[in-house]
Amino acid sequence: MHSLQITAESSSNGMLERDFTVGGVPGVLWSSASSAADRAPLVLMAHGGGNHKKHPAMSGRAQRLVAGCGFHVAVIDAPGHGDRPRTAHDEAEIAELFRARAAGEPEGPIVVRYNDHLAELAVPEYRAMLDALQELPEIGTDGPVGFWGINMGTAIGIPFVAIEPRITAAVFGLHWPDVLAEKAKQITIPIEFDMQWDDEHIPREAGLALFDAFASTEKTLHVNSGKHKELPRFEADSAVRFFARHLGRVGESPA
Amino acid sequence: MHSLQITAESSSNGMLERDFTVGGVPGVLWSSASSAADRAPLVLMAHGGGNHKKHPAMSGRAQRLVAGCGFHVAVIDAPGHGDRPRTAHDEAEIAELFRARAAGEPEGPIVVRYNDHLAELAVPEYRAMLDALQELPEIGTDGPVGFWGINMGTAIGIPFVAIEPRITAAVFGLHWPDVLAEKAKQITIPIEFDMQWDDEHIPREAGLALFDAFASTEKTLHVNSGKHKELPRFEADSAVRFFARHLGRVGESPA
Repeated sequence: MHSLQITAESSSNGMLERDFTVGGVPGVLWSSASSAADRAPLVLMAHGGGNHKKHPAMSGRAQRLVAGCGFHVAVIDAPGHGDRPRTAHDEAEIAELFRARAAGEPEGPIVVRYNDHLAELAVPEYRAMLDALQELPEIGTDGPVGFWGINMGTAIGIPFVAIEPRITAAVFGLHWPDVLAEKAKQITIPIEFDMQWDDEHIPREAGLALFDAFASTEKTLHVNSGKHKELPRFEADSAVRFFARHLGRVGESPA
Repeated sequence: MHSLQITAESSSNGMLERDFTVGGVPGVLWSSASSAADRAPLVLMAHGGGNHKKHPAMSGRAQRLVAGCGFHVAVIDAPGHGDRPRTAHDEAEIAELFRARAAGEPEGPIVVRYNDHLAELAVPEYRAMLDALQELPEIGTDGPVGFWGINMGTAIGIPFVAIEPRITAAVFGLHWPDVLAEKAKQITIPIEFDMQWDDEHIPREAGLALFDAFASTEKTLHVNSGKHKELPRFEADSAVRFFARHLGRVGESPA
């Protein structure tokens, strides 16, 4: 088993940021600067395609979870993303995506196929990260763990959560059912799922089919008007409240 | 124009409760006990079928809106409900609903027809209530006004909001598109809409069709697993945050 190597540490806006690697994969762990050593629930995140572990969408969610709930929050770069090298296969798939986009062809088949490939690599990395994080006394092995990933984060998260019993609540959204629905059928924990009603890439029926596939007795779908990239910011606040409800609130109530 | 007659006044848990009548229709106005005279946004509510203006679902929502946002909140008894007499037509429709329920027949056609009848009577009553409430200095004619009604409250609320330009944000849910979709197409204000994924009365396609019908550029659908009567309590908190976003928050932030 790989252990967590802390490589840098800084602090701003009340949030302690610890860069780490696990088995060579770079990640970041955010905690409350005033109570970083205190035992608290953990939320694992996965970033979207083309982004990276410290994209503002990631640090913004972390800020909400840390300040609002006192949680620990961790994310790693996906294969071929952030500080990790791209393979020839990555380059070829990205070129194919840009070609399809420029030609006005559907992006779905390429995104589905490429994200599925990345998920196969990322799932064991997420399990190794969780193993290593649970070695830290402020996280431990007996606390609740959430997962939050949208877009490519869902393509990685659904197969991860399907085989990872330590995850007790998850937020997903904005992906196709093609390869994920079968794995979603194995998931029984509470979930919140986001989709966009006017998504130009994912048909309504496809988004609804993926939501329907989860075996969870407690599941919530949030649909908003707007295109693929127009998921409203208030859905991040909603996700934080979802985790506060299911993982147990530590700090102040979230806004 | 009928003016508002205050018939009783009491106060508990920080909430001032003023019973009133407008044109003989009984209603209740809830306000913050500590700032009841202060100008604040108004939310009109409509109760569900078989319930009444002071059902715990109504006073519970009012408590959240008053304590969380400092809003004024008002609701009237629907025709044939609460303190209002039932007509022979009411009695016949209710008997028919109970008969269908006992026989295991679909309730939808009866509920749709009966609620449509009640809405025809209730819409002018809601307009008269709003006229009269806006005479009060703490409400006035220039503040934002929301509408919140689920089940029968949606059957009354959609035709009301469709013709009432003073309503600037609305929460609806749990009804059929049969007579309401055409009216929903006239509604352009922000809406939040609730449906239940395992509703034994309203098919999924029917709930989705009604959500789809709204012409609003800003609209949100919340779907939860569970049967018709199992709408989770956290959806009431979500509705309060929706009104806080759209009507402007006055008091503390809602929990």
